[in-house]
Amino acid sequence: MLNATANPTSPRPRVVIIGCGFGGLEATRKLQHADVDVTVIDRTNHHLFQPLLYQVATSGLAAPSIAAPTRSLFRNLPRVTTLMAEVTGVDVQARSVQLKDAAAVPYDHLIVAAGATHSYFGRDEWAPMAPGLKTLADAFDIRGRTLMAFEAAEKETDPARIKALLTFVVIGAGPTGVEMAGTLIEIARHSLKGEFRHIDPAHAQVLLIEGSPRVLQAMPESLSHKAQVQLEQLGVQVRVNARVVHIDATGLQVETPSSTPGAGAESYRIDSSCIVWAAGVAASPLGKLIATATGATVDRAGRVSVAPDLSLPGHPEISVIGDLAAAQSHVPGQPPKPVPGVSPGAKQMGRTAAENILHRIAGRSTQAFRYRDYGNLATIGRNSAVVDLPTPLGPLRFSGRVAWLFWLFVHVYFLIGFRNRLIVLMDWASAYLHFRRNARVVVGNKTDEGRQTPAARTP
Amino acid sequence: MLNATANPTSPRPRVVIIGCGFGGLEATRKLQHADVDVTVIDRTNHHLFQPLLYQVATSGLAAPSIAAPTRSLFRNLPRVTTLMAEVTGVDVQARSVQLKDAAAVPYDHLIVAAGATHSYFGRDEWAPMAPGLKTLADAFDIRGRTLMAFEAAEKETDPARIKALLTFVVIGAGPTGVEMAGTLIEIARHSLKGEFRHIDPAHAQVLLIEGSPRVLQAMPESLSHKAQVQLEQLGVQVRVNARVVHIDATGLQVETPSSTPGAGAESYRIDSSCIVWAAGVAASPLGKLIATATGATVDRAGRVSVAPDLSLPGHPEISVIGDLAAAQSHVPGQPPKPVPGVSPGAKQMGRTAAENILHRIAGRSTQAFRYRDYGNLATIGRNSAVVDLPTPLGPLRFSGRVAWLFWLFVHVYFLIGFRNRLIVLMDWASAYLHFRRNARVVVGNKTDEGRQTPAARTP
Repeated sequence: MLNATANPTSPRPRVVIIGCGFGGLEATRKLQHADVDVTVIDRTNHHLFQPLLYQVATSGLAAPSIAAPTRSLFRNLPRVTTLMAEVTGVDVQARSVQLKDAAAVPYDHLIVAAGATHSYFGRDEWAPMAPGLKTLADAFDIRGRTLMAFEAAEKETDPARIKALLTFVVIGAGPTGVEMAGTLIEIARHSLKGEFRHIDPAHAQVLLIEGSPRVLQAMPESLSHKAQVQLEQLGVQVRVNARVVHIDATGLQVETPSSTPGAGAESYRIDSSCIVWAAGVAASPLGKLIATATGATVDRAGRVSVAPDLSLPGHPEISVIGDLAAAQSHVPGQPPKPVPGVSPGAKQMGRTAAENILHRIAGRSTQAFRYRDYGNLATIGRNSAVVDLPTPLGPLRFSGRVAWLFWLFVHVYFLIGFRNRLIVLMDWASAYLHFRRNARVVVGNKTDEGRQTPAARTP
Repeated sequence: MLNATANPTSPRPRVVIIGCGFGGLEATRKLQHADVDVTVIDRTNHHLFQPLLYQVATSGLAAPSIAAPTRSLFRNLPRVTTLMAEVTGVDVQARSVQLKDAAAVPYDHLIVAAGATHSYFGRDEWAPMAPGLKTLADAFDIRGRTLMAFEAAEKETDPARIKALLTFVVIGAGPTGVEMAGTLIEIARHSLKGEFRHIDPAHAQVLLIEGSPRVLQAMPESLSHKAQVQLEQLGVQVRVNARVVHIDATGLQVETPSSTPGAGAESYRIDSSCIVWAAGVAASPLGKLIATATGATVDRAGRVSVAPDLSLPGHPEISVIGDLAAAQSHVPGQPPKPVPGVSPGAKQMGRTAAENILHRIAGRSTQAFRYRDYGNLATIGRNSAVVDLPTPLGPLRFSGRVAWLFWLFVHVYFLIGFRNRLIVLMDWASAYLHFRRNARVVVGNKTDEGRQTPAARTP
């Protein structure tokens, strides 16, 4: 029944958007009332509000609070078609997107917004021991591992095993790593208080390992410093200039420059049963695929280099946006500047790519992408965050409780859906007042587990 | 560190409770301030409010809304220890409960409240095609299957395949089957309206297959009849006297008595990609294990026959309660009556078993279990439910909107936690007013899926 969209006699230009993250969603919204047929293709059935994914991983929020069903968002927009499917390739000659288990979808204009995943810098064998955090399934995995570590410690008798079970390691001190570490220490010291009889969860250690010299590298140095101080006040052990060289099922090996000048690197081991990977980001493999087909170049992180108007050289009908694009911001009279990999960047690119499609259809010339920097903010934990806002009078930088309230307001404001905003506020109020984390549920096994081999049960 | 509980010099009697469902939770509450040490062992980390599990399966509620972390419930009760562990056996001679991956836990008094699972009547090979609904993982599985059937239909071009994808079959017309069928038809006809471009979800069929002559067998016949009428008004196709004889990956085979008197059975096939099993219940295998060890008998459903005071013959230190017990209600001057497998029954047994332990410790004689019937109610869908309440003036029976409001009030009242009550009410209000189901989220895959073999990734 895909023929409806595929109908070559359709009078309206066909726009296909791959990915319904911040960039794809914004592009769709910009096109929803235009005289075009839009098909949005996503691997999942929901738009995920990724900035709060760490809250699902740390039992603070339920998954539906940060995930909006894609179809519902476009309900009653008859020109927008939603397809839940996996993209296997793009035929740039035939102008069609190939799908797994479904007919190809032809396009006149294509926006590729497939996003990024985490990168283990060529050490993919670390993935089972140090899961990353990009999808709801990742968040459930990390939620299960952290809560189960406390459960296992309560049953354990060997002190060394207990110590390893209560040692949580977060690798990478970007925004996600900082949020994870700050929240894990709060869980250990406050949320679980009084609930165990054989261990004291407050004895748990949370280590934040960062390869570079400071946390939150995208922030100005003064705020990085404040963030580290706030993390340490909460109880997180921050290790900067620390490089992970090995991970196995029982811990990891870390290398730091020697404290004695001139001497080589020092290396030490941390025994831990719960390691979270928040270090590297790599663009979706779709980037390389499209680059190869169009002759575009990709950078080391797999991001596709785009023209100033976000299209591909020689392929004005294809735009690449969001985390998948190595895009630059163009301000007349200034040299181009790279766009940071943040959600406002993706949204703005989505808007520009959509507008440029409408320009092209109307026979007008396209506009170069210009990134408007509304600032940078990161939360650390209870009452702690850092905020860096550009103002006409120069940057406004603040931290602590006011920054935390600002962070909270911004995140609730941008969350989709009134119900979600209300429930997130309620859950946060209960976390703030009673240290209670409302989603401390590990889903566990299906009841017929063991009846059949797992492979046979996959739906 | 289990030695704390295992300490043989402990002055307080040690009570171990296996399972933290309605029965185990109630028993723990009854004992929480008594002069005993209580250890609650459960396979999961949460007490599940099973009567609303179908709402998680049908995208109406998020999992945390109906699951309370067991540990949190007993926080600040220093004499109650919670262990998340799987029971592998009970050594009735040594009086200790054996656990997987943890030291055995000795007891002076044992309450076994391990509950029931679904039974495929010896056809366990049907499990992968027709999942049952007992755990949160089951609910997520069914949620994924139902939502994915609509997604697959939207991408499908073969009309026969589309029809099979949009045919939902619920096997078993007890309360769970009736709720599932009533909610699925509401999703198809209302919740998904306007969201698809190639299919009309309202064309979906929901079939409710029941082996006996009527739905809701535990209800009086007049209410069964009303329930069937209400189901049919919602659009559910009810097939009573219909026996499932075969299930495979693409559908099922159903046998009914011939409509021509005297002729044999008629058999027909239903093509369906989404089958839910709500037919049989079997007691936890722990029942048989304990029966074998103590010489108690089990019935056909695997339930253990208990003495009037819920203990086992010859083993007054062991009580079996809830769905695992074939218990009888004892009213002086009346013949004993079997206790129905409902949550009030389990709760009342939990209370009696706990009280009897305190009686025994005090050297008093134990009391026989008496079931107080507060009535029976089942919801069917929007504005439809049936209620049967015993009153001193005879049974009060009603159905329709008033019954539905009554059902709603009772379920919200018994749900644990103020936050959950409020959020469930909000989610139900939004479902009622806008047909919006707030948990339409399929969790999907981990981002590193494919990087490693699935087996290597299991935490």
